[in-house]
Amino acid sequence: MGRNTSTTSENTALIEAVTCGPIHSSSKSYLEVPAEGSTLSVPVRRISLTNDTTFDVYDTSGPYTGYADAGECHDLASGLPPTRDGWAHPEAVPASPEDPTPVRTQLAWARAGHITPEMRFIAAREGIDVEVVRTEVAAGRAVIPANHRHPESEPMIIGKRFLTKINANIGNSAVTSSIAEEVEKMVWASRWGADTIMDLSTGRDIHETREWIMRNSPVPVGTVPIYQALEKVGGDPTALTWELYRDTVIEQCEQGVDYMTVHAGVLLRYVPLAAKRVTGIVSRGGSIMAAWCLAHHRESFLYTHFTELCEILARYDVTFSLGDGLRPGSIADANDEAQFAELRTLGELTRIAKRHGVQVMIEGPGHVPMHMIVENVRLEEEWCEEAPFYTLGPLATDIAPGYDHITSAIGAARIAEAGTAMLCYVTPKEHLGLPDRDDVKTGVITYKIAAHSADLAKGHPGAQARDDALSTARFEFRWRDQFALALDPDTALAYHDATLPAEPAKTAHFCSMCGPRFCSMRISQDIRDYAAQHGMDTVEAIEAGMAEKSAEFTGQGSRVYLPITE
Amino acid sequence: MGRNTSTTSENTALIEAVTCGPIHSSSKSYLEVPAEGSTLSVPVRRISLTNDTTFDVYDTSGPYTGYADAGECHDLASGLPPTRDGWAHPEAVPASPEDPTPVRTQLAWARAGHITPEMRFIAAREGIDVEVVRTEVAAGRAVIPANHRHPESEPMIIGKRFLTKINANIGNSAVTSSIAEEVEKMVWASRWGADTIMDLSTGRDIHETREWIMRNSPVPVGTVPIYQALEKVGGDPTALTWELYRDTVIEQCEQGVDYMTVHAGVLLRYVPLAAKRVTGIVSRGGSIMAAWCLAHHRESFLYTHFTELCEILARYDVTFSLGDGLRPGSIADANDEAQFAELRTLGELTRIAKRHGVQVMIEGPGHVPMHMIVENVRLEEEWCEEAPFYTLGPLATDIAPGYDHITSAIGAARIAEAGTAMLCYVTPKEHLGLPDRDDVKTGVITYKIAAHSADLAKGHPGAQARDDALSTARFEFRWRDQFALALDPDTALAYHDATLPAEPAKTAHFCSMCGPRFCSMRISQDIRDYAAQHGMDTVEAIEAGMAEKSAEFTGQGSRVYLPITE
Repeated sequence: MGRNTSTTSENTALIEAVTCGPIHSSSKSYLEVPAEGSTLSVPVRRISLTNDTTFDVYDTSGPYTGYADAGECHDLASGLPPTRDGWAHPEAVPASPEDPTPVRTQLAWARAGHITPEMRFIAAREGIDVEVVRTEVAAGRAVIPANHRHPESEPMIIGKRFLTKINANIGNSAVTSSIAEEVEKMVWASRWGADTIMDLSTGRDIHETREWIMRNSPVPVGTVPIYQALEKVGGDPTALTWELYRDTVIEQCEQGVDYMTVHAGVLLRYVPLAAKRVTGIVSRGGSIMAAWCLAHHRESFLYTHFTELCEILARYDVTFSLGDGLRPGSIADANDEAQFAELRTLGELTRIAKRHGVQVMIEGPGHVPMHMIVENVRLEEEWCEEAPFYTLGPLATDIAPGYDHITSAIGAARIAEAGTAMLCYVTPKEHLGLPDRDDVKTGVITYKIAAHSADLAKGHPGAQARDDALSTARFEFRWRDQFALALDPDTALAYHDATLPAEPAKTAHFCSMCGPRFCSMRISQDIRDYAAQHGMDTVEAIEAGMAEKSAEFTGQGSRVYLPITE
Repeated sequence: MGRNTSTTSENTALIEAVTCGPIHSSSKSYLEVPAEGSTLSVPVRRISLTNDTTFDVYDTSGPYTGYADAGECHDLASGLPPTRDGWAHPEAVPASPEDPTPVRTQLAWARAGHITPEMRFIAAREGIDVEVVRTEVAAGRAVIPANHRHPESEPMIIGKRFLTKINANIGNSAVTSSIAEEVEKMVWASRWGADTIMDLSTGRDIHETREWIMRNSPVPVGTVPIYQALEKVGGDPTALTWELYRDTVIEQCEQGVDYMTVHAGVLLRYVPLAAKRVTGIVSRGGSIMAAWCLAHHRESFLYTHFTELCEILARYDVTFSLGDGLRPGSIADANDEAQFAELRTLGELTRIAKRHGVQVMIEGPGHVPMHMIVENVRLEEEWCEEAPFYTLGPLATDIAPGYDHITSAIGAARIAEAGTAMLCYVTPKEHLGLPDRDDVKTGVITYKIAAHSADLAKGHPGAQARDDALSTARFEFRWRDQFALALDPDTALAYHDATLPAEPAKTAHFCSMCGPRFCSMRISQDIRDYAAQHGMDTVEAIEAGMAEKSAEFTGQGSRVYLPITE
């Protein structure tokens, strides 16, 4: 971004490209949470309903939805205010019981019994006791990806005891995309609910693109440093070195990247296992490291230098996302020897990272048929000390390119129910092309569905409240509230209007499915009204078996079938 | 349709509205299967691949995909040829061990040990032994919806031992739609994989619309007769009578309807249970019968006359689809007392129907959170003698109107894995409006994904072959074959072209995700090629640890990074 180098006209063009303004029927609101030395402002999206109540939902969208329009947007060249810089953090503490090196990471602080401002922020955001936050982080079952050098971020947590999170991948490639597009994708993805974004840029201007994203992102940002390292050596993986990679990691740590995918589990001896597969190695990072190992016939420098890497990440509190370079790329390759060999190694690396006080999550597949999904969670938990699992789908079948947001949402919901803490979205363009703006939104909404379905299934406290609010609105024919409470109000409204565009249809006591003459919801209400009017419990009203009551209902019921005049 | 009354110009307009012609890269083919007295032509769609092989897939599309274009379409006013009329069927046999009345139903024939032409057709279609077909039908665990008076249909089977089936709802309503649109929706839905369609028309011209659909439908057609009965009494459910309903059922049996939804389990005493719910009664048929029961304070005529209904359906071999009038319409109401009270009654009715030799399936929810889905299958199997379960979704959350094809596909895949035999599709317009052509296709493809995911999870023989074929094509950069093998080739191709429209990109050894300079799939292939060239197993090649081999790989590997010139 070069805070001082960008011209005003460039910045103005960029601001205009970014989506600002509130979400349908919603306003930005903040919960004021007291913390040592300051007050934390925890964002919520407040949905206004037509019955004069409001409904608050978890909000990932940052300040952008608090601006009336792009004209109010902050100066993108300066970035968001570095809020977390003003927070009172504890002093450094020993990295772990085995390693006395003083570090300042959420993991080490949690183990030492410290409650950080980030933990308080998260507790308020999740509606959960802060001590639960601390103990889950201390156990390594949850992570708070919050690089000291990304003070613009609003803290969030990834762990199975908390709301299931979703990640959206963005990033330019050699083929297409510009900086403005990528910043807008970040804003756009977090607007619709992305809890983190990963910048997977592989083309030009990687550093510059990331700088603009970092300084303006309200959500944690993840990267795969080997991508940038590869660009630095002209795209030849055999030319990679530990030193070059290390310097790239430090460069990204300095910029504020919150978590990094490191494919340190792709060992030389595992590569042949993948060569026997139907789809070989499908992870870009995995294949880069496989190529390096084969070319040099040496063990991966990510593995041999892993301790050094831990020391670097500990300095910034950057979280490891241990990459699954050997994840299956097809149903045929699911749960195979290559995949699970790597997973065992990731378990070994998890223990090393935690010893250094570094937070860890574990990446997972990929393509897995439904009956083999739960086994992935079981083994990850067993081998990796229940570190948060972060999976890409998985796709439950290979046969629907163009619909892989759906094939993968089926697997994602299932694996999240089983305990996966964060789901990496898949867009409709997966396997076919780069996602555009619409694809990003479709991917995010689809994954919010998968994540929320899992939260319901896990019995997450409070998860069902939104379902109940929406269903009650539906039953009471509060159409506008159905739209407002929907994950995507704009699309719900547009679909309704496609069949019944007239304004009165938004207050009508019917819909286009049955038409005005007969509505099942309405008759249910009439039954209830009938009971209420007669001052008795509905059950008794009917069980009493009074014929005259039936006659009354018949008379009164006629209003159900009158043409609607509203 | 009035075969003799339609004018030529009307018919021509209708033919032009209907989608004819082959699916992308595919041709219509028929397996010739010998049967008593004749040869059965069992349809398959044959996909041509660029490596000079073909791949056959189950084909529901009927003759329409065998026509080069609409100009070749048969005369819709005359309908499809009544193929099954020429088949040699067994004589009548006793309805059941308890009822000696002679009937001609697939259930009674199966029990008597007869193998019908329909069973042979299905065995060839499913690639399964015909004796498995017969025994599953005999046990009531599978149904073959095939009204004697719908001889135009291509027989199919619904049962958990077989491929998971999907249904698409069509039908006009008081608000919108015409006959031509509905015939086209039937052709369009079966083109993309709908195994049956339900005509849920509620507006004008119900009989006429259905006649056009029946005579031209290659797939079984289901209805909800109470909808038409309600139209006959001007929309007032309290004016319904058994006699009027019975005559409507006979009218529809005569037309050839293959299965009928009958909400005979909505008993008077269950209605109050539903009144206590968040969303009351959401089934249209259920609320009609609830209104009738309350108004008359009498038991449902569907229940009190159920035996007579069995006698009528047995004469035509129409299959019962026992409706779940009290299915939950929200997460809050899932698996409640009302729902399960009705399910127990459906079990009682199942036994009565089977005694009369009538085939039965059971309809299921609706809206159910993931952790409560399997219980639905368990109770249905226990109480309804494992009659095929036929569910609507279920939706795993209520909060995403506009995306309910996805919320429900998550539930559908799960419930099908647990044993549901047929899934009723849900389109993106559910809860909001009537589906258009695009919505119907999206709904069908989404449900093919759910059904196929379940078939993979159940280990259905042969299900994985298509995944493997597509993944192999993907690994070998046979882009055209990926499109051809996809559930929706047109969309896959369009999405690919959105990023890389140039013709050479369809044979390029890279895609838009990583760009031409580095491709993970390609390096996997290079590893494999390297091993092959050196005349040794890949594993040994690497484990041998020969440094010179590494050097060779490095040299050869450089071609991975050359700009693609193809």
